[in-house]
Amino acid sequence: MSLFLTVDAGGTSTRALVHDADGTCMGYAVAGGGNPTASGVESVANAMRSAAHTALRQAQAEPADIGHALAAMAGSAVGLTGVERGLQQLGVSAELRIGSDLEAILFAGTAALDGAALVSGTGAAAIVVRGGVTTARSDGRGWLMGDVGSGYWIARRAVRAVTADLDSRGPRTSLTEALLPAAGVVGDRSAGKDVLLDQLVTAVYAIPTPGIARFAPLVFEQAPVDEIARSIIEDAGTGLADTVTALDSPDRDAPLVVGGSVLFHQAGLRSRVTELLRERGWTGPVDAVSDGTLGAICMNLRSASVTVDADRHAHARTSLRAIRSRI
Amino acid sequence: MSLFLTVDAGGTSTRALVHDADGTCMGYAVAGGGNPTASGVESVANAMRSAAHTALRQAQAEPADIGHALAAMAGSAVGLTGVERGLQQLGVSAELRIGSDLEAILFAGTAALDGAALVSGTGAAAIVVRGGVTTARSDGRGWLMGDVGSGYWIARRAVRAVTADLDSRGPRTSLTEALLPAAGVVGDRSAGKDVLLDQLVTAVYAIPTPGIARFAPLVFEQAPVDEIARSIIEDAGTGLADTVTALDSPDRDAPLVVGGSVLFHQAGLRSRVTELLRERGWTGPVDAVSDGTLGAICMNLRSASVTVDADRHAHARTSLRAIRSRI
Repeated sequence: MSLFLTVDAGGTSTRALVHDADGTCMGYAVAGGGNPTASGVESVANAMRSAAHTALRQAQAEPADIGHALAAMAGSAVGLTGVERGLQQLGVSAELRIGSDLEAILFAGTAALDGAALVSGTGAAAIVVRGGVTTARSDGRGWLMGDVGSGYWIARRAVRAVTADLDSRGPRTSLTEALLPAAGVVGDRSAGKDVLLDQLVTAVYAIPTPGIARFAPLVFEQAPVDEIARSIIEDAGTGLADTVTALDSPDRDAPLVVGGSVLFHQAGLRSRVTELLRERGWTGPVDAVSDGTLGAICMNLRSASVTVDADRHAHARTSLRAIRSRI
Repeated sequence: MSLFLTVDAGGTSTRALVHDADGTCMGYAVAGGGNPTASGVESVANAMRSAAHTALRQAQAEPADIGHALAAMAGSAVGLTGVERGLQQLGVSAELRIGSDLEAILFAGTAALDGAALVSGTGAAAIVVRGGVTTARSDGRGWLMGDVGSGYWIARRAVRAVTADLDSRGPRTSLTEALLPAAGVVGDRSAGKDVLLDQLVTAVYAIPTPGIARFAPLVFEQAPVDEIARSIIEDAGTGLADTVTALDSPDRDAPLVVGGSVLFHQAGLRSRVTELLRERGWTGPVDAVSDGTLGAICMNLRSASVTVDADRHAHARTSLRAIRSRI
């Protein structure tokens, strides 16, 4: 009962780790998406069970060896009994604790217990953490009501700009030439707007919300050569900086950790957000992380009363990198 | 076989009329929504069958008396065999013709066969008609990709502005005080943002897309006293004018008929759109209609080779008004 099972459940993939109290990683596996609001509780449970099963096997551990289980995920705890039952079916009897995916991003980037996190992936949100506990949050209100500067938000702006371009209601943009083939539309402008728009409408509405976020990288690709794409990215940067600035009572000298697929992969956007925050008086270190897995490990250790100082944090990071490089 | 059954199927209600070749209305009934893209083919068929049944009874007509049936509706003809079967179950053997809901709006406002129509209801679109046939269209690309200036578009802007206000990411707006009770949220600003936002998120995401359009009237109510609401309406007006201006080869001296719940009920927006179009060289008459029912009558008559001149148009309008005033 001395091992830890840590799960980091994101919208597009679910990572499971078996590790010990030192943060030494012994088994690691990746399965499909695990955001309960986007893909349903059943698929979350399946992804977690599949990843945990493989991680246990890789660690040559028995389910009964797991004394501490924690999953970091977005969304509420509604229906999590189904997720817990999935682990029980594997033979893991340890109580499953649920942690915040945003806290996992923060703790992936720092051993400190105070700081802030900003995430832009499919969605976007920021939090303030004090003494290991979230004390304030900003945005994260989903594709319809918020998520300013997220992948969905960027892609929606792009899709609308392309529609307006083809429809002669908006300015011409090279996003059109980028999006049409990406959406599977056959033909170019010479085909006529109705032919292209009818195909594009069919293709885009067939993508379950908020899946159009997959088109966000096209906007970053076009930004160097296209005014519309550039203004979308600029507005995303301002929006994300506003989301951080709106946080209640943050410590501006504490670490700010940024993550999510958009902020991690798009260094230009990350620089712009950092620049805006510097102008607004944020002086603490800003670091980027690819995901919250390391943070989830730290949360699992801490919930078992293991102290995670800078040394153990660094050790777990090195160990996680090593085991990831093997798969 | 000398009577006509005309159906005007909108997103929120379906109107059925039994009339003769002169446009004299003999039976009229209203049922629920009939937009196949929004409510599904089955509900369209049910609404049409219910309205048609009542209209036939009111006209003291037999289904076999119907020689010409036409339904004006949005969306594609996909699954319309189901709709046709619904009428056949009533005993109506006449072939059901499908007409454009946008053409119905135009012909509700004019006896001319050339002109343009602009609709803003839940969605928004414009068309050019020449010789009775649509030759160009603009927007109408739905809640995700277009519909600029529609009820959904206006309401989405408002919902996001309220979310940003409560989240301290955006300016304060009286739309918040208007929307919270309309969405069933309990409490005011003193309750704290997370209490209000959690309720608002739950309430708004529970509304099937694009149903938030129901909140659009709140924006018009607040516009006289709120800068945010005013800018949303101003942008809606510009967007709708752009939609008309983008139409390919319109005749700017021909009639422009505007309709849909937003443009019909909001005289201020209608005036603003008209003003912008005048600045852009539109000189033809601009008229507003509440719905496309009269236009659908004209389309049904014309598809039976009945000439609809200004006199018959005026007669049908008077007769439609009279039968409506009785229910």
